[in-house]
Amino acid sequence: MRQVYLDNHSGTKIDERVYNEMLPYLKEYYGNAQSMHSLGAKSYEVIQNARQQVANLIGAKTEEIYFTSCGSESNNLAIKGVAEAYKTKGKHIIVSGIEHFSVLYSVKRLEQSGFAVSYLPVDKYGLVSSEDLRNAIRDDTILISIQHANPEIGTIQPIEELTNIAKEKGVLFHTDAIATVGVIPVDVNKLGVDLLSLAGSQFYGPKGAAALYIRKGVRIVPQINGGIQEAGRRAGTENVPAIVGLGKAAEIVQQELESNYQKMLYLRNRLIKELPQKIEYIYLNGHPEKRLPNNVNFSVEFIEGEGMLLFLDEKGIYVTSGSACTSKALKMSHILSAIKVDPAIAQGSITMTLSKYITDEDIDYLLQEFPAIVLKLRDLSPLYAYFIKTGKRQEAGPGTDYTNHHTDE
Amino acid sequence: MRQVYLDNHSGTKIDERVYNEMLPYLKEYYGNAQSMHSLGAKSYEVIQNARQQVANLIGAKTEEIYFTSCGSESNNLAIKGVAEAYKTKGKHIIVSGIEHFSVLYSVKRLEQSGFAVSYLPVDKYGLVSSEDLRNAIRDDTILISIQHANPEIGTIQPIEELTNIAKEKGVLFHTDAIATVGVIPVDVNKLGVDLLSLAGSQFYGPKGAAALYIRKGVRIVPQINGGIQEAGRRAGTENVPAIVGLGKAAEIVQQELESNYQKMLYLRNRLIKELPQKIEYIYLNGHPEKRLPNNVNFSVEFIEGEGMLLFLDEKGIYVTSGSACTSKALKMSHILSAIKVDPAIAQGSITMTLSKYITDEDIDYLLQEFPAIVLKLRDLSPLYAYFIKTGKRQEAGPGTDYTNHHTDE
Repeated sequence: MRQVYLDNHSGTKIDERVYNEMLPYLKEYYGNAQSMHSLGAKSYEVIQNARQQVANLIGAKTEEIYFTSCGSESNNLAIKGVAEAYKTKGKHIIVSGIEHFSVLYSVKRLEQSGFAVSYLPVDKYGLVSSEDLRNAIRDDTILISIQHANPEIGTIQPIEELTNIAKEKGVLFHTDAIATVGVIPVDVNKLGVDLLSLAGSQFYGPKGAAALYIRKGVRIVPQINGGIQEAGRRAGTENVPAIVGLGKAAEIVQQELESNYQKMLYLRNRLIKELPQKIEYIYLNGHPEKRLPNNVNFSVEFIEGEGMLLFLDEKGIYVTSGSACTSKALKMSHILSAIKVDPAIAQGSITMTLSKYITDEDIDYLLQEFPAIVLKLRDLSPLYAYFIKTGKRQEAGPGTDYTNHHTDE
Repeated sequence: MRQVYLDNHSGTKIDERVYNEMLPYLKEYYGNAQSMHSLGAKSYEVIQNARQQVANLIGAKTEEIYFTSCGSESNNLAIKGVAEAYKTKGKHIIVSGIEHFSVLYSVKRLEQSGFAVSYLPVDKYGLVSSEDLRNAIRDDTILISIQHANPEIGTIQPIEELTNIAKEKGVLFHTDAIATVGVIPVDVNKLGVDLLSLAGSQFYGPKGAAALYIRKGVRIVPQINGGIQEAGRRAGTENVPAIVGLGKAAEIVQQELESNYQKMLYLRNRLIKELPQKIEYIYLNGHPEKRLPNNVNFSVEFIEGEGMLLFLDEKGIYVTSGSACTSKALKMSHILSAIKVDPAIAQGSITMTLSKYITDEDIDYLLQEFPAIVLKLRDLSPLYAYFIKTGKRQEAGPGTDYTNHHTDE
């Protein structure tokens, strides 16, 4: 059976070349990068090489890249590390309401120790407004953290516009760019950010290695204390094979960025155009244009994400859903709440994230299988039966604006 | 040329079976363990299996094992996590002065936020005394963290004795068992500890996966906030291949523990006996009996660690030294300071850590090459020339007790 992996924002399949690059460091070159003998020196050298490769991908200086174990750790280090370093200057932080949990729970943690946090709203597309950001900045604001793009609904924020405001006010700016690095062009200087999180598992690198870009001159308090690894900013024995993999993945994706982009954009646009032609009552979430080239998110009315996910899984198609039942935390996606998708409809939301491996044939296969699954599930749906019988929606919450969810706008 | 890797406390060569077990999860089974589709379920399942394997190795319950990215992270989580969870009960912590930097710098960090820390001294062998521990416990003591064994000088602490005191006083006990798990038998219930750190890279597993045992009922505040991975105690996408490797390494080492132990003990004892027969003026550091079966640490008088390390490296022999010149932090080992080795002699200290791969022939090779290197370095040493000429030591500090460093006691 064909396998169509459309859950790439949860992690990509590793590139064969990345895999091959890693193996020697998993097997023969097992020296600790801090050891002074030649086996240690070898590990140190390849870590420095990877640091250069990652720096190149985002237009940073080599010494501005700090390796961590995962994107969540990068976000934690950025936020808690800056908060502690600058707390004598002020204790106010601004984030958007649609950040990743690693950002939201980092600031919640800081709230418990006396920091104040402002949560910026987003519009129906998931966009933060410059006006809102400007109004939220206070004299004691020390950090703004707004993601580059949202992995669930694909919306890309106007980071340059936002960092200009931060600069005017002299406030540090962190962006969680885990969904964008390796997917769209990312340049730390063009974006104007002071800190930026990225993860190799998002661009055909391995799990276990991520990075935080910290602009030269920005202070940060380490969150894992101990040895002098990563210039004293992140202790712990370096995961050499994973870091080598991250570096190689960065090098490869830099070369392929434009072609991957065009390929995914074309397939994404096929899905956005053709799915509504084949399935009635489905609504695109996120921005129609300011959107990741690999992201599609639809709410499919009258059914639940869980059913779609399971039936698609049986067909070898892997997706995710923002519904409560398909979340291990058993909570509806806070992203869909923030853009005010009606909870009844959000239950039928589905995220499909493409990768460079996805082909026209994969999309053909999805477009063939998915509508049949939706029909089958709707046949079992009392909500749908009621709608067909009466022409009315039984459970729509008050004030639901369905025009918000049409793809034709 | 023969390669003799004697830096195993900095990380071991991966076991071939561990390596093979990991590869499919690096390559084909790349699902995120939190994804609800079958590729995600596969990752979740193998993580749970690894959790069981690690639990078995140390006599814990499966749900008491929490995966982290490295031993330093485990130590940070244990200390800072417990401190924050129990700070309303008290703000006093006890550690020994010869803990790993990830313990020492974690408590230093806590000192900055209002915690008080007592640093227990050690005797000339590196042993903590029960008496000292008992005296250090205060009404507001919430945590004791004392390592199971020291990776540099090999001394094994009487943890059972120490945890009995902690229990009497109702204080939580953490042990950094990174140097012992997979090397000597470790059972969390026999030891009587509440928290225990371990790392797979110490027993033929990969870098990038470690664990913290947290006894059921012990509260802890997560140090990486975000998703619900690791029961909400450590956010971040799981490094599936590394965790699978850690699990497999635990399973294998459990089976082989006794035979590895006997083999390493025999070779260690050869080194401790034969090196002083071949090299004059060398002194064993650490305890002669209460000692890791894989650890040898000698101070070689009149020369510097750096020279030995480089010449041994040329012969394919990889070791470490506690001298300042061979430390990337450019500081003399705090362990050797704590056991009061004279700084002049500590400069010539050398740590050799064995693994199951080391053979009699490797030791023969070392015993043949090392004495020649020492002779060569001493020929270049003005300290040695002075000693030979006058019979006196030129640079020994006041109060140095050489009897402390003789192997014949």
